[in-house]
Parts: sequence; structure tokens; C-alpha cells
Amino acid sequence: MRILGIDPGYGRTGYGVIDVYGNRLQAAEYGLIETDAALPMERRLQQIYDALRDIIARTSPERLALEQLFFNRNVTTAIAVGQARGVILLAGVQAGLSCAEYTPMQVKQSIVGYGKAEKQQIQEMVKIFLNLAQVPKPDDVADALAIAITDAHMFSFQTSLEMRAKKRGTTS
Amino acid sequence: MRILGIDPGYGRTGYGVIDVYGNRLQAAEYGLIETDAALPMERRLQQIYDALRDIIARTSPERLALEQLFFNRNVTTAIAVGQARGVILLAGVQAGLSCAEYTPMQVKQSIVGYGKAEKQQIQEMVKIFLNLAQVPKPDDVADALAIAITDAHMFSFQTSLEMRAKKRGTTS
Repeated sequence: MRILGIDPGYGRTGYGVIDVYGNRLQAAEYGLIETDAALPMERRLQQIYDALRDIIARTSPERLALEQLFFNRNVTTAIAVGQARGVILLAGVQAGLSCAEYTPMQVKQSIVGYGKAEKQQIQEMVKIFLNLAQVPKPDDVADALAIAITDAHMFSFQTSLEMRAKKRGTTS
Repeated sequence: MRILGIDPGYGRTGYGVIDVYGNRLQAAEYGLIETDAALPMERRLQQIYDALRDIIARTSPERLALEQLFFNRNVTTAIAVGQARGVILLAGVQAGLSCAEYTPMQVKQSIVGYGKAEKQQIQEMVKIFLNLAQVPKPDDVADALAIAITDAHMFSFQTSLEMRAKKRGTTS
């Protein structure tokens, strides 16, 4: 299974594509979508959308995972990031991907094992999970990969629950 | 000149298309885009985007005008409305429309003449400006038409300023 993780922003959107082989994870591609701050917002949204369509067409993921927003920033920022999220979700649903969202706490819990992990711990674990030579830079990219890994964990957990339920169903 | 005004929301998005003939305004079409609350957010965003693409294709406006968001609601709502705005702006820029945003105060000032007008006064003025038999319902639709009218006013004001500047340029 191939998962596209996204850390959304209107200026910088990190993305990371990972493959899941049973318990093993492997990075297929990761990077940063940057928009031109001199352009009006609608053009920047178009840049994000177009870049993401290209990434989806090139890498053919089956799932899209996004970080759910922080709730401690101001409303103006929230609207702007919301607009970027809107075009990202649209690109995902248009390509037929399943979309999932995770809170920062879910990501921390899934990657490091507890919800108050430091950013640096997460990044180290991303490196280890994906068997990379170094921590991916910048932070937006490492975060996007962390979200993709979280989705992989959640998805296999869900699948194993369903398999157990089925097994119980046949033996009872 | 034809203007598409939008009052954005993820559940209900009002739209209004008006034509500007000198000082005279005329409504071409107006209505409501409603999304299915039972669907996941990404599908609802797709419904808004698809409906808006249809409206733009059918009515061929030259400009898109949006209400700039309220800043008094909570961050979760702001993100959700931001997502809807994102796909609306994307549909506009993809169709080559000029996009403009106005604050609620700018709309009130432009329609009624002062920034603290009541909702009902705005709606009455929308009816009068567009020479309609009654106030368009629901509120989202009247608001969308008010935003389109604001854009018409701002645009002709801007144009007349530019013409005066040109005239001064040639006579001096």
C-alpha cells in the first residue's frame, strides 16, 4: 500500500510518499511544495493544487493523510491554512484517494509512543522507521512523512482488528 | 461586466451573478449550493467545487467576489470555512476570473452607506439595486448578491479614479 502524507500550509506544504510492506516501511519520494509569496492567494492555491496533482499522478498513492490543525493559532492563519487544506483535499478526492486526518497528538503517540514527544524525537524516529541516512529537511517534510507513517500504523491496526473480528466470527 | 458574488460556507454557499451596465445593475442568476452533511468533508468540498465550475461555465462571469471572513468565530469553524473558500478561489482562478475579497464592513458601507448597517437594511437595498420583486432568500443568497454589488461599486470607483488620473495626465 502506498500512502501520501501532507503537512499543509499556503507558503510551504511538505509531502512524503511511503510504501507499506507488512511491518516494513519505505520512502518512495518526499519534498516541499513552495508557493510564490508575491502572488495573490488564489494563484498560490492553484500552485499547491497543480503541484499535488502532479505528485499524485507520478506516485499513484492509494491513501492521503493530513495533519489536523493546531488550535492555538489565530483565526486569520486558520482561514489561510484552511484554504490550502481545501485544495489539497480536493486533489485527493478527485484522484479517488481515501483521506484521513490525524491530530498532532495522534502522530506523536503513533511515532514515539507518547503524546508529548519532542519534535526532534519524532524526526529521529522517522529516520529510523524509513531507514534513511539522515533526518529529512526541512521540518515540513519530516512532518509529512511522520503523518504518512501514522496512517500506516493506524491502517494496519484497523486491519488487524477487522481480521480478528472475522476470525472470531468463523470460529464461534 | 458580469460579476459572480459568493458567500462561502461548507454546508451552504450562496452565489449571485449580476451584470453591470454603467450605473445600472441586473441579476442574471442566483441561488444556493448545498452539500450533503452525511458525506466526509473532502466529498463536500468536491460538491462545492463541481457546482461552482458548472455555474462559471454556464454564466461566464469576468470577476469573482468573496466575503472576507468574520474574525469572531472559533478556529475550528474558520478552518472548515477556509477549506470551502480554498476550492472556490481555485475554481475562480482556473477559469481566469479576477478575484476580490471584501470585509463585511466594506459591504455594508458600499450597499447602505455606513459600516454598521443591519442585515435587513442590506437585504432591502439589494432588492432595490437589482430591481427585484422581493428580497432573495435565504440570507446566504442575499449576502452573495450584496458582495457582487459591492464589487461592482468598487470596480467602477477604481475605474473612474484611473480615468481621472489619465485625464490629468493628458491635460497637464
